[in-house]
Amino acid sequence: MDTVEEIAIEIQALDQQAMESARQRQLQLTKPPGSLGRLEALSIQLAGITGQAQPRVDSKAIVVMAGDHGVTAEGVSAYPAEVTPQMVLNFLHGGAAINVLARQVGARVVIVDMGVAAPLDPHDDLLDRKVALGTANMAQGPAMTIEQAEMALAVGRDLAAQLAAEGVQLLGTGEMGIGNTTPSSALTAVLTGAPVADVVGRGTGVDDDGLARKVEIVERALQVNRPAADEPLAALAKVGGFEIAGLAGLILGAAQARVPVVIDGFITGAAALVAARLAPAAVDYMIASHQSVEIGHRVILENLGLVPLFKLDLRLGEGTGAALAMHTIEAAARVLREMATFESAGVSDKA
Amino acid sequence: MDTVEEIAIEIQALDQQAMESARQRQLQLTKPPGSLGRLEALSIQLAGITGQAQPRVDSKAIVVMAGDHGVTAEGVSAYPAEVTPQMVLNFLHGGAAINVLARQVGARVVIVDMGVAAPLDPHDDLLDRKVALGTANMAQGPAMTIEQAEMALAVGRDLAAQLAAEGVQLLGTGEMGIGNTTPSSALTAVLTGAPVADVVGRGTGVDDDGLARKVEIVERALQVNRPAADEPLAALAKVGGFEIAGLAGLILGAAQARVPVVIDGFITGAAALVAARLAPAAVDYMIASHQSVEIGHRVILENLGLVPLFKLDLRLGEGTGAALAMHTIEAAARVLREMATFESAGVSDKA
Repeated sequence: MDTVEEIAIEIQALDQQAMESARQRQLQLTKPPGSLGRLEALSIQLAGITGQAQPRVDSKAIVVMAGDHGVTAEGVSAYPAEVTPQMVLNFLHGGAAINVLARQVGARVVIVDMGVAAPLDPHDDLLDRKVALGTANMAQGPAMTIEQAEMALAVGRDLAAQLAAEGVQLLGTGEMGIGNTTPSSALTAVLTGAPVADVVGRGTGVDDDGLARKVEIVERALQVNRPAADEPLAALAKVGGFEIAGLAGLILGAAQARVPVVIDGFITGAAALVAARLAPAAVDYMIASHQSVEIGHRVILENLGLVPLFKLDLRLGEGTGAALAMHTIEAAARVLREMATFESAGVSDKA
Repeated sequence: MDTVEEIAIEIQALDQQAMESARQRQLQLTKPPGSLGRLEALSIQLAGITGQAQPRVDSKAIVVMAGDHGVTAEGVSAYPAEVTPQMVLNFLHGGAAINVLARQVGARVVIVDMGVAAPLDPHDDLLDRKVALGTANMAQGPAMTIEQAEMALAVGRDLAAQLAAEGVQLLGTGEMGIGNTTPSSALTAVLTGAPVADVVGRGTGVDDDGLARKVEIVERALQVNRPAADEPLAALAKVGGFEIAGLAGLILGAAQARVPVVIDGFITGAAALVAARLAPAAVDYMIASHQSVEIGHRVILENLGLVPLFKLDLRLGEGTGAALAMHTIEAAARVLREMATFESAGVSDKA
């Protein structure tokens, strides 16, 4: 496997020439300059990412990675851990929110078992990439070994490369894992320096006592493991999760393959943060879909300099925000490609 | 034609039973309660509007009304008035932003000539409802007569009724009319009581001098015509526009027909404000798509108690924000209808 340094080197800068072409074309389209706001900026980013003056994002996939977390033994979630494999089955049967929203936007859903703590029956639509039957309890020691973290990162990178080779033009990130807001909070605190209390939220819905317990558990995990901001791979191993590591790898792989990648909520945001620390250039390939209710998400987005497309008070995960945003991102590409110019339409330009 | 009082009586309250059914179903779907945020609230609103526990918004139409404004003689726009008919042709040829975004979301675009100041050749996709060749200059007298305002309102109401009868389940509002942010600012100032300077923006892109001139012209129009907040029909006639009146009628007609109606930007917002003053119950049938860059739009949304789904720095109009939002609104309906329940999916509910 490539080292982190090698990954970082392989991520190219955005294509300035394609961006300039897109910028010029936006000025010729039949609308006042700048009047489509963020759609115009998105179209220019897509041009830079893909290297195409008129990019397409017709072919879409949302990768939903699932994993379990030893830290759930500390009672950090409102739901029992058995819900993780149950929800994987729900994804496979097409009944979850992400299935509905992906169908609507025409995106394929790729379900990956990164480390669910139960054996899962083989299924045509399930990728078995189980690193282990859930992470260890980070409140008592490292969640995983460095080797496991590297293995999970490689799974994500390989999958991004494979999907890009299959023609996927827009990748979305999604996740499922009871308890996974807790490691996401730990990673966010370590990698941004924010106080733990500012990055721990209610997840799927813990009460005030549960919230206080989550803060305490994250504090304990940080004391026990001593992760450091300048050692992101070690931090990922110490207080991360298999699905988070896999998603960080997916984001890096998307950037390497010059495919735009849509960040969903807090957990995929934590994965984006890890990816950005491993390879800062990867941030240019990210598009933030929404800002979650989960308080740590805002901290991540601001740290990465990403402005979400919308806030709809979502806190489900699964890639639901990413799926919704894909429509807006495709709109940006379509406007650039399909609108008439002042010249072609015979419309008078600004007086 | 019905009087304003008759219209108001014909708008029913939202169906509480359908809303309660939707609310209960949201609690049974495989996700933490409330975790889909505004999608859940939207689904409940759609249930209340349509009277269906599991509403559908598959069939969509965006009505783009065009009109010209005598006040352009005062130099309030960055573009010449000839752009209005040119853009109508662009709509008919499918080259404008609204055509691109409507195609993407599967919405029909209905173009209506409410009062373009030029003869337009007949076209299969153009509804000729021209009230006059543009309004009169509101800086010198009333923009239109009361009869013209009533005629334009009736056009919109009739069109909403017709589209509803044809099976349209979601209506979007759009407009085109060089100069139309100026009457929209005047209407917003009158009907909300906000200072003129707080509701006049740059429109398609006037410079600082142009902005100062717009403020002065709106002030003059208010002094000359003396519109009053408690006389919304007269205010519409004095300082409105034909497309604004038509859209106010369309919104009222949608509410009468129990069809959800999506508000676009500042001009359609001004039409929504007029509709709300004529029949306050109509507000429950409105969905605000986005918050425009145009400063008066925020004033309107707050006054109506509408929270936009997103802010994407749009300021184009045409219904572009409404078209984008239709995807999110359809998502809300689909989630409610298509997601599995805890019971059907065999997923454990909250511990």
